[in-house]
Amino acid sequence: MKKIVKYLLLCMFLISQSLRAQNYQANWQSIDQREIPQWWQDAKFGIFIHWGPYSVPAYAPIKEVEGVYEKYAEHYENRLKTKNKLFLDFHNKTYGPNFTYQDFAPLFKAEHFKPEQWAELFKKAGAKYVVLTSKHHDGFCLWPSKYSPNWNSVDIGAHRDLAGDLTKAVRTSGLRMGFYYSLLEWSHPLYKKESIEQWVDRHMIPQMQELVNAYQPEVIFADGEWDYPSETLKSTTFLSWLYNESPVRQQVVVNDRWGKETRSKHGGYYTTEYDLVHDQKGIGDQASHPWEESRGIGTSYGYNRFETTEDYFTSKQLIDLLIDKVSNGGNLLLNVGPTADGRIPVIMQERLLDMGRWLAVNGEAIYGTRAWASRPNNSKDTHRYFTAKGKDLYLICTEWQNGTFHIPLPRKPVRVSLLGHSGAISSDFQKQQLTIEAPPFNPNTAPCNYAWVYKLEGVLE
Amino acid sequence: MKKIVKYLLLCMFLISQSLRAQNYQANWQSIDQREIPQWWQDAKFGIFIHWGPYSVPAYAPIKEVEGVYEKYAEHYENRLKTKNKLFLDFHNKTYGPNFTYQDFAPLFKAEHFKPEQWAELFKKAGAKYVVLTSKHHDGFCLWPSKYSPNWNSVDIGAHRDLAGDLTKAVRTSGLRMGFYYSLLEWSHPLYKKESIEQWVDRHMIPQMQELVNAYQPEVIFADGEWDYPSETLKSTTFLSWLYNESPVRQQVVVNDRWGKETRSKHGGYYTTEYDLVHDQKGIGDQASHPWEESRGIGTSYGYNRFETTEDYFTSKQLIDLLIDKVSNGGNLLLNVGPTADGRIPVIMQERLLDMGRWLAVNGEAIYGTRAWASRPNNSKDTHRYFTAKGKDLYLICTEWQNGTFHIPLPRKPVRVSLLGHSGAISSDFQKQQLTIEAPPFNPNTAPCNYAWVYKLEGVLE
Amino acid sequence: MKKIVKYLLLCMFLISQSLRAQNYQANWQSIDQREIPQWWQDAKFGIFIHWGPYSVPAYAPIKEVEGVYEKYAEHYENRLKTKNKLFLDFHNKTYGPNFTYQDFAPLFKAEHFKPEQWAELFKKAGAKYVVLTSKHHDGFCLWPSKYSPNWNSVDIGAHRDLAGDLTKAVRTSGLRMGFYYSLLEWSHPLYKKESIEQWVDRHMIPQMQELVNAYQPEVIFADGEWDYPSETLKSTTFLSWLYNESPVRQQVVVNDRWGKETRSKHGGYYTTEYDLVHDQKGIGDQASHPWEESRGIGTSYGYNRFETTEDYFTSKQLIDLLIDKVSNGGNLLLNVGPTADGRIPVIMQERLLDMGRWLAVNGEAIYGTRAWASRPNNSKDTHRYFTAKGKDLYLICTEWQNGTFHIPLPRKPVRVSLLGHSGAISSDFQKQQLTIEAPPFNPNTAPCNYAWVYKLEGVLE
Amino acid sequence: MKKIVKYLLLCMFLISQSLRAQNYQANWQSIDQREIPQWWQDAKFGIFIHWGPYSVPAYAPIKEVEGVYEKYAEHYENRLKTKNKLFLDFHNKTYGPNFTYQDFAPLFKAEHFKPEQWAELFKKAGAKYVVLTSKHHDGFCLWPSKYSPNWNSVDIGAHRDLAGDLTKAVRTSGLRMGFYYSLLEWSHPLYKKESIEQWVDRHMIPQMQELVNAYQPEVIFADGEWDYPSETLKSTTFLSWLYNESPVRQQVVVNDRWGKETRSKHGGYYTTEYDLVHDQKGIGDQASHPWEESRGIGTSYGYNRFETTEDYFTSKQLIDLLIDKVSNGGNLLLNVGPTADGRIPVIMQERLLDMGRWLAVNGEAIYGTRAWASRPNNSKDTHRYFTAKGKDLYLICTEWQNGTFHIPLPRKPVRVSLLGHSGAISSDFQKQQLTIEAPPFNPNTAPCNYAWVYKLEGVLE
Repeated sequence: MKKIVKYLLLCMFLISQSLRAQNYQANWQSIDQREIPQWWQDAKFGIFIHWGPYSVPAYAPIKEVEGVYEKYAEHYENRLKTKNKLFLDFHNKTYGPNFTYQDFAPLFKAEHFKPEQWAELFKKAGAKYVVLTSKHHDGFCLWPSKYSPNWNSVDIGAHRDLAGDLTKAVRTSGLRMGFYYSLLEWSHPLYKKESIEQWVDRHMIPQMQELVNAYQPEVIFADGEWDYPSETLKSTTFLSWLYNESPVRQQVVVNDRWGKETRSKHGGYYTTEYDLVHDQKGIGDQASHPWEESRGIGTSYGYNRFETTEDYFTSKQLIDLLIDKVSNGGNLLLNVGPTADGRIPVIMQERLLDMGRWLAVNGEAIYGTRAWASRPNNSKDTHRYFTAKGKDLYLICTEWQNGTFHIPLPRKPVRVSLLGHSGAISSDFQKQQLTIEAPPFNPNTAPCNYAWVYKLEGVLE
Repeated sequence: MKKIVKYLLLCMFLISQSLRAQNYQANWQSIDQREIPQWWQDAKFGIFIHWGPYSVPAYAPIKEVEGVYEKYAEHYENRLKTKNKLFLDFHNKTYGPNFTYQDFAPLFKAEHFKPEQWAELFKKAGAKYVVLTSKHHDGFCLWPSKYSPNWNSVDIGAHRDLAGDLTKAVRTSGLRMGFYYSLLEWSHPLYKKESIEQWVDRHMIPQMQELVNAYQPEVIFADGEWDYPSETLKSTTFLSWLYNESPVRQQVVVNDRWGKETRSKHGGYYTTEYDLVHDQKGIGDQASHPWEESRGIGTSYGYNRFETTEDYFTSKQLIDLLIDKVSNGGNLLLNVGPTADGRIPVIMQERLLDMGRWLAVNGEAIYGTRAWASRPNNSKDTHRYFTAKGKDLYLICTEWQNGTFHIPLPRKPVRVSLLGHSGAISSDFQKQQLTIEAPPFNPNTAPCNYAWVYKLEGVLE
Repeated sequence: MKKIVKYLLLCMFLISQSLRAQNYQANWQSIDQREIPQWWQDAKFGIFIHWGPYSVPAYAPIKEVEGVYEKYAEHYENRLKTKNKLFLDFHNKTYGPNFTYQDFAPLFKAEHFKPEQWAELFKKAGAKYVVLTSKHHDGFCLWPSKYSPNWNSVDIGAHRDLAGDLTKAVRTSGLRMGFYYSLLEWSHPLYKKESIEQWVDRHMIPQMQELVNAYQPEVIFADGEWDYPSETLKSTTFLSWLYNESPVRQQVVVNDRWGKETRSKHGGYYTTEYDLVHDQKGIGDQASHPWEESRGIGTSYGYNRFETTEDYFTSKQLIDLLIDKVSNGGNLLLNVGPTADGRIPVIMQERLLDMGRWLAVNGEAIYGTRAWASRPNNSKDTHRYFTAKGKDLYLICTEWQNGTFHIPLPRKPVRVSLLGHSGAISSDFQKQQLTIEAPPFNPNTAPCNYAWVYKLEGVLE
Repeated sequence: MKKIVKYLLLCMFLISQSLRAQNYQANWQSIDQREIPQWWQDAKFGIFIHWGPYSVPAYAPIKEVEGVYEKYAEHYENRLKTKNKLFLDFHNKTYGPNFTYQDFAPLFKAEHFKPEQWAELFKKAGAKYVVLTSKHHDGFCLWPSKYSPNWNSVDIGAHRDLAGDLTKAVRTSGLRMGFYYSLLEWSHPLYKKESIEQWVDRHMIPQMQELVNAYQPEVIFADGEWDYPSETLKSTTFLSWLYNESPVRQQVVVNDRWGKETRSKHGGYYTTEYDLVHDQKGIGDQASHPWEESRGIGTSYGYNRFETTEDYFTSKQLIDLLIDKVSNGGNLLLNVGPTADGRIPVIMQERLLDMGRWLAVNGEAIYGTRAWASRPNNSKDTHRYFTAKGKDLYLICTEWQNGTFHIPLPRKPVRVSLLGHSGAISSDFQKQQLTIEAPPFNPNTAPCNYAWVYKLEGVLE
């Protein structure tokens, strides 16, 4: 009897918790209390996709000009509008001056798009979630949004629900699906000071709700938030709906771009896109809050057909990047830029598969881990990174440590092993320092390339 | 002193009248009280222009199929949507099944559009006003409407304010400018029962107001009114704004298509488009109310490049048509279908110039006239039509009356003459009948072709 | 017995004649002896068709610039090559500088070409033969010539044997079929001084023979003969083959453009294209030899979409032109410029049908006639033209002769009538002069428009 | 005095030699006597380029179907002609049935072709010569051949002398330039039994001579020789001209495809394209005669945009391939398939640069070497290959040989070293066997990836 009462009380407590959890107010204090769902914190590695009419010209000048960002092919429309000389020259020479950005829409045909192949590739890459640009700053929707008639992928060009078809395939492959959504549109007539309230009430929020209701995305990566404060954009109103009422209220994860004052302050996880102008890391790498870094395999997000091998990260660089982010507690959202006809360039396929091969051996040092609280500062010199999971620590060496080497550690590991290596690893622990004797390296038998992981079991409390 | 008081009273009366005139209520009883401005009643002959993305395929099957209207190239989008076999076959064969109506927009380039040439042509044709499809049922705007981003002629295709440029040219040539505007859009997501109020409040009425404010049209030819009653469409609300507050409140003329119950009942002039299905004239020809008949030079309104000479009215037929309409008190709005590259087909130019040549001689029997109250029924057999202006009557013979012929008349004319003919015309009046002796016909000296006008002065009171 | 011998002798004579006729030598003296087949001399009215890749841009400036011919849309390729400013400006603006003439070929699709409709139209127009540009100066062949691989209408663009399909349809309609063929090609690498013999032996003559063998044309309208003497072009070699051996040796008719010295001197009929530069008639109008004038309905031969009504001859002008040519013994080859998608512009249809309507009434004054040896000089002032057939003379009045008028004549006609008019015509003959009393003109009963023909029977010996 | 005489005699001998060398007869016995110029035998590694209108669809099904080759995108035209179902389905779906192969020509624009970048890439890859498809079986010329008017890259599409521009750039980068040339053309009307002599005399041989005279290629890779014997193709006539008189008579190298009986028998070097149908190596690998293997980086030669990472050789595989060929005395001609807009796909760039990095370390074991006469059979099991140069032997290990290993050798090397490794290599020689002690492998300091070379100096006589 007592047990039953106790059980009932517990139930009621849980229900009330749950109800409370589902009763967020439309203000940051309340919204910010929601925890980032654990699936996302464990996932660590996602695929970002930038795809739209800008994939037709697929152009950006590769080098910076006078310190200004020029690398992003997805900014094509705006570069024309703001009369960027390089873009204008390219455009006029290639398409002629009577051709505008809108004229690309019918050429964005995606006629060879095979969503199942994409999804399988992402899965093989070891990614756990996918984030597609449902709508970028050009306002073009990859789904049949009723708020963008004639300017979406069903009405013109591809004549296909690209977002919907990818969502289905991604889920069939066992990954989570999310959407990037731009709060601004360069060319929308309502998007200006005089009519910003109509913009928010009649276009932006209804459209986001339409998207959520139609596809139940588990990630919403907002962007284009920099022109107005979140109050103007009524972001907390949307988020309270999302958290309280929407079909994804339990599992959805959002980022921190909801108004010009919100980055690294409010919303869900923090975004830390690398600051290309000042060559500085974002706040993320030092954050105690969950965060995610997005980065392209090449220099552009949208496909830039003029990038060469020099502009692509190597597999080694990408794996180092993933290790660096994860060891500091972050996720990596690695971007892919498909072609206008619906293919993922082979060089990108190759990078993803290389990552997948590495993760097949070393994934346990990545997925489900957290930053080790006592980690030393990452250093390119030491090439040593740590991740923590339960009582175990993972030492990830981005350069092979030859012979005997030493690691300061709080306590003696119960067991030391090299992931993917079947033999035992000799080690010694003295004076808070672990000495590891690396096995002789033989390229024919090495467990993997690029980086190697020692698992140090039972080191943490 | 007395005079001054009288004058002041008159002024106050006129001012009050004018204020009253400018204070229409949003109901038909009030709206219907407004008189059609005289300029329009005097104009008699206008040019209608159907031009849009449908001008790219420029297709309609020429013959009726199973009693269904198929002749209208401007219905292309809907014919595809409703899977009309003839349209589908043509479309798939010519453009392929992966090509939709929206894909025509970038091909609607109007790159050789010379509005001044159009305007001069219309002037030479003797037309007094021009009515352009600012937006047809496909929703595509020929002006940069902020309610149709990416789906207007400035954003895509032509990259030009076609409506604005034509308006300027037409006015420079001394003609009046007006717009056709469709109250429905086949593909707009808001245009359906569930959201019709949003449609009206957020799209339709604001867009019409935008159009009026931007270009001050003197005619608004509404259409696509048949799905909802005018109450739903809030037509009287719009019209009361138009009559009371808009910049064109003094001179604007509207038609009668403002809701499914309004044709030939409410609004401005009545429209009487010939009923092609039942081969019947509209109510107009019997109307005591001002009315207008619209008709294409060919069988389609939007350009149909597959029409042959058989499908075009001859100049003779068009002049007969004008005479028939005007003699019954109506206006003729004759339609022209330009090509997608911005030209008016030469056959249409020729027809218009033929009409202009006839009007140059006989215009006084058309412009500014009214139906003669005591006119006999028009009859193809007699080939005799009448128009009235002041005390004069015009007898228009659509077939040359050879030798001596008789006309019943209320009184003896002060003078009988043949327009364009310098010599005197012998006539005699007896027993309420005028006997005219036609001058011998000589094709080298005839004043005109097609139809000949006797002016009978001083016949009316 | 005697009879049999006589008959045998006659047969042998005829056979020898025929053999002689079929044994032309490859020199002008011999070639020029061949008589123009009678069918052509009787035909009087043919249709010329200029159609090719130049029908895609369909451009020529309408006005002459500095006395240089610019009116011909079919000269587009050469105008670009010779850097004509107007053409270059148009081209660069419309297609961009990276687009060459050759790039038009795939756009010359003729996808709506209905050869049967064309043929029926030409028949209704009263034409008796059709001459199509099998190959113009651009070298593009409208048939699958094995001497122009990849540069003919079967290999690229239309993917159809345009020449063959039209030939079939024209013959089915009972008309004769012929081809225009350019002896030069602007862009062919062999067409230059160093390799002109190879040009002639390997390209030009084999290609003409291929054409003749494939389609049996009854007219060959050579052109582009001005760069080399006929000896270089081996024209008499080709013509002796054509007259002696080819499948059309009996009925074929050729013109006089076979080398830079041959016009109005050698070959078949003389061509007398109006000299637009000097506004002078060609030699033809004075020729005792059979001749033909070619002229466009508009100012260009190849379709020029920028021509307006001002640039088209009226039906009246065209009928006058036909009368003028025929009365002087010539044929009229009236040119039609179809669109790239395979349609004949409606304005051209209309002109042709107007001519057909006139010929339906007055054809007997045209077909089968010859110039009247004693004709007065044509004069625009008198508006009177004559044609002769057998013992009869036709008086063609291009302006209605009102009342009573006089005609000098060698003898009294047996009968005077007005074609298309059933009543008798009063006339009187005195002092070598015929006095005709025109019937009173009534537009309702007039036999035709534009020009009227009195038939004067039995006037000639 | 005696010396001078002796010198004169020597000179005369040399001159006579040279004259003899330059006096080849038009028969195989004579032609086959010419030695392959040494530059080519030393070069070992060349780049093949397949580029043409087929690069526009860039399609081939990736898998074999019923044992038939389908992998080659450059066979697109023929696959359509022979109604291959997979090609037809793709073509009709993507371009529609009214679109033919010829219609691709204007779309082959090469608008972003940067020949200098290509040449630099090939140089960095370590290649010594480049062979471009001047004309493939489709007959389309990448230079302005006067024998292919309107069907070459200057007249249509690119409007550029692609062959000429690449030749210039390749030579500027210090590499040799050669051309692939197809002796057959699928669509040329002369290419058939009845007219094969005209084909050879008027088209094929003059065109090859035009190519040689215009660009002085140092390699001519003939192909498409299988339909006729070399006698019909007059190949020895062409080759005697090439060897005796042409501007490249000294240095030019040709292959063995000059008639259906000539492969691995006559001409210059033997070609040994891997037999994909029977999965067999060609004769080449056993040949005592100089030979070359051509192979694509992917499965197609012409760009196939549908190939994925699975279809591309890895860098490891390509380096193994090069080693295998060179160790057997052959050259490798590795194929690159650029895109229609003029770019080399990044995946191909990456493969080439990987090869270049390996060759930068190990090139001396490749360039200028010959097969070692006493080499053991190559074996995938041993992963050991040899090349010989002067007195030195190179042992190339395609798998790292860990620890101590043994090599049978004729004599003791003067010195043993590991290319790219600065330290000494311990070795011992006993009983005709060399024992090598591999240095411990450390990925951080390894000289290269993929394969490692021991240089064994002074082993050969």
